Amino acid sequence: MKYGITETVKTINSKIKINDIIYNIVEKKANAIKYFLEGEEFNQAIVFGAYLCGNFVADALTKDCDEVILVDVHPHLKEIIINEKIKFMDSSKFNLSLRNGELNPDLVVDLTGIGGLSPEIISKLNPSVLIVENPKGTFDKDINNIDNSVDRLNKGVKRGLLNTFRTSKVSKTSGSMTLVIDTVMDSCNDLKELDGVLYALPNLKYYEGILFHEKDIRKFIDEVNTPAITVSCLDEDLENEINNILLKNIDRIYSYVEKIK
Amino acid sequence: MKYGITETVKTINSKIKINDIIYNIVEKKANAIKYFLEGEEFNQAIVFGAYLCGNFVADALTKDCDEVILVDVHPHLKEIIINEKIKFMDSSKFNLSLRNGELNPDLVVDLTGIGGLSPEIISKLNPSVLIVENPKGTFDKDINNIDNSVDRLNKGVKRGLLNTFRTSKVSKTSGSMTLVIDTVMDSCNDLKELDGVLYALPNLKYYEGILFHEKDIRKFIDEVNTPAITVSCLDEDLENEINNILLKNIDRIYSYVEKIK
Amino acid sequence: MKYGITETVKTINSKIKINDIIYNIVEKKANAIKYFLEGEEFNQAIVFGAYLCGNFVADALTKDCDEVILVDVHPHLKEIIINEKIKFMDSSKFNLSLRNGELNPDLVVDLTGIGGLSPEIISKLNPSVLIVENPKGTFDKDINNIDNSVDRLNKGVKRGLLNTFRTSKVSKTSGSMTLVIDTVMDSCNDLKELDGVLYALPNLKYYEGILFHEKDIRKFIDEVNTPAITVSCLDEDLENEINNILLKNIDRIYSYVEKIK
Amino acid sequence: MKYGITETVKTINSKIKINDIIYNIVEKKANAIKYFLEGEEFNQAIVFGAYLCGNFVADALTKDCDEVILVDVHPHLKEIIINEKIKFMDSSKFNLSLRNGELNPDLVVDLTGIGGLSPEIISKLNPSVLIVENPKGTFDKDINNIDNSVDRLNKGVKRGLLNTFRTSKVSKTSGSMTLVIDTVMDSCNDLKELDGVLYALPNLKYYEGILFHEKDIRKFIDEVNTPAITVSCLDEDLENEINNILLKNIDRIYSYVEKIK
Repeated sequence: MKYGITETVKTINSKIKINDIIYNIVEKKANAIKYFLEGEEFNQAIVFGAYLCGNFVADALTKDCDEVILVDVHPHLKEIIINEKIKFMDSSKFNLSLRNGELNPDLVVDLTGIGGLSPEIISKLNPSVLIVENPKGTFDKDINNIDNSVDRLNKGVKRGLLNTFRTSKVSKTSGSMTLVIDTVMDSCNDLKELDGVLYALPNLKYYEGILFHEKDIRKFIDEVNTPAITVSCLDEDLENEINNILLKNIDRIYSYVEKIK
Repeated sequence: MKYGITETVKTINSKIKINDIIYNIVEKKANAIKYFLEGEEFNQAIVFGAYLCGNFVADALTKDCDEVILVDVHPHLKEIIINEKIKFMDSSKFNLSLRNGELNPDLVVDLTGIGGLSPEIISKLNPSVLIVENPKGTFDKDINNIDNSVDRLNKGVKRGLLNTFRTSKVSKTSGSMTLVIDTVMDSCNDLKELDGVLYALPNLKYYEGILFHEKDIRKFIDEVNTPAITVSCLDEDLENEINNILLKNIDRIYSYVEKIK
Repeated sequence: MKYGITETVKTINSKIKINDIIYNIVEKKANAIKYFLEGEEFNQAIVFGAYLCGNFVADALTKDCDEVILVDVHPHLKEIIINEKIKFMDSSKFNLSLRNGELNPDLVVDLTGIGGLSPEIISKLNPSVLIVENPKGTFDKDINNIDNSVDRLNKGVKRGLLNTFRTSKVSKTSGSMTLVIDTVMDSCNDLKELDGVLYALPNLKYYEGILFHEKDIRKFIDEVNTPAITVSCLDEDLENEINNILLKNIDRIYSYVEKIK
Repeated sequence: MKYGITETVKTINSKIKINDIIYNIVEKKANAIKYFLEGEEFNQAIVFGAYLCGNFVADALTKDCDEVILVDVHPHLKEIIINEKIKFMDSSKFNLSLRNGELNPDLVVDLTGIGGLSPEIISKLNPSVLIVENPKGTFDKDINNIDNSVDRLNKGVKRGLLNTFRTSKVSKTSGSMTLVIDTVMDSCNDLKELDGVLYALPNLKYYEGILFHEKDIRKFIDEVNTPAITVSCLDEDLENEINNILLKNIDRIYSYVEKIK
């Protein structure tokens, strides 16, 4: 707690950070994938899309896979990887390996979403288990038209669509960044209704700009390590309430893999 | 327009900046004050509270006042003043001048809001025209209890309460920062509903921390010079729509001085 | 609880009825008035506006007033009165009594709101204690312009403005019907977010049409004696939750008399 | 337009009636089905679920089908049928016909939603074209768990899932009644924000009670033939605006059949 402009008004930062919300979401997605895989083990897993969830999913898969390859069109995302068991490939390295016949995955996880992987690539890889992320959230005509996630589910004896939704709330995509923004925004709207709250401020930034235009992984990691919400209020004992409202909104996020025939 | 993670997704910044919204609000407040004063001229005007609106109001008053004094408890806010005709006083300078009988204002404008100026100070100054800002917005029990703006309206042959509201929308105070945050948040909620919009991100920061804890006026001015909203969407021609939605929400803000007997 | 179309879906009516919400609101208004009057006793009290609150306020005043007159332009509203100590007057009866000098109230309560009583009438009555209801809720430019409640506060050694608001929520007027509608609507929106709720239906009707166009007091009393909300859901144990959400929204309503100099 | 309690306040009913919104939704669903069928002709079509959409879909199918059978567990819903070409069967009649081998549909449309038809029945009918309505709207954990619409899509060379959503808005199911309620409620919330609007009242009733508990088809038809919204306002020229806001919300409803492999 700090004082605001005058000592009558207090400023309280949420204990929960942007980082905590991101971690909660990617963990839910990784757990949904693990649950769908039922403890099965794989020789070679390929995960497409490092950001924001792929790195975490790849890490979770290292326990059950001899080899985990993380593919991303952005070479600088290699830096995001901590687990040394994960092998990173950018597009050219991936295409070379594909041509050389070095890729023979029994598990493929496609997290590239809207405008991501082409169905042909997945078809060539021909995995026995295939999971594709459904980028769609609450219905939107244009996003619905552009999405081809079901078309990508064209191979495999076991196929699943990774869905992530916010229960009873509007989120236009299942993207981790969309879910973080909407969770923080809805929490701010809830907080604004509490007695004695002057305003609730979402500490959000265009993180994708830092990652993809500035290409500064370090700065991204710093920037998400910040309290999710700053509240200006009269009551200095509001900290628990702020966290509870954030937690209630985080709990709205559900992720599960839907089996597709 | 920039591309997002993939070329299918675009990123568009609003042309309207945080700065533009702040300017619009303080201009409305200054115009409401000028309208109430009906072109009257004054020898000495004292404005209490430099941030966020006071500096602008003081500037507007220089045309009709021989002397304009801007008083703030935070000495470093002196730097925010550009107009050389405005005389800045911090608390100790103000108290000294008050004791020495140098202050004899015919106009007092109190913009200090919650926890601000005491009614006794205004009583001592005994101006003929007195305007006090009502810090209250949408009803809140606790803010209602702590507010003493009407008690401060204790002198003057002409007394007015400066009200600022957002029509049909919830804002808990009339503070310029509250109104900026709520205007940007509500615009994001509106934008999220457009076809093909993935998310709408409010580019807000805890500006009061920069001004009052870091005491860095320069950084504050830099930070508010940023697009108010960043939109992730499929349609690259959304720029006008983004500005229109922001303008529609800015137009919800009304400021007027209510005459009090 | 009843079954919906199939036995899987349940239908639950709220225990709280429209009537209960109306009663809660008019009781809050009556209590605010009693609190302002501080136990003072009066010879003659005149209450203007029978619907929806006036009848209840008049009833509450009978304990502390020798005579309580309830005035309404709609003669058929006489039927709404139960307490025999209340004397009802329609416009012509009131005007006659006024001309004949039979009216000399020491307390006047004006609940007529927008388009109601003219300031001149109140001025003629010249009570020592005067309370006028402020019809305004959340700011609205047009309602703000048309409201003249402060102009009606033109007499009396003790003057008060009866304010009624919903904390942190939008209600465009303080009218009892507006507050009922908004409370039920916001409760439905909250209920819709619960797990397993298919829809939440507000059991509202245009009650003012029944009262003022059909002029059927009996039908009005029947129609408000109905569960406020009907919920279609999977979980048959939702009844308490429904009432709690309604109560939480009812508790948002605050009424108080603001002393005006 | 009628006057409210005083002549200053007007009461305006929307031109659009509850009936119009119902019709719009069932027409969208019927069109989605027709589009999926691509003009194909059928010998025998069976539609399960008469209320609220089934009767309309059956009617639309009579043009392309030699025989259209409408099945519903509620015998009294037979009265809802106007088109004489539709053959109505209640559960016992359907089961008898099924045992007698009289049913050999080449098209089955299952509109029974949550708790409706069992997958076994559809399996026995073994149609070449099968359409099942997805009852789910915005994600809800409990509704998601109870829904078995994809399991019912167990036969047919051409299989489709009938989806109906409100773009960027929360509706917990695709049920026609859910969509009507949410469309009217959201329109009321939009209307409340207009300048000079005191309140916007949804003229909704628990129509399912009239149909399934009272079993009064005639009363149902009367009750939905009512203006969707009643608005209390200062401006008598608001009629077009009211309809435009209703239309904008009706246009949010999209229905399409998703091809399932």
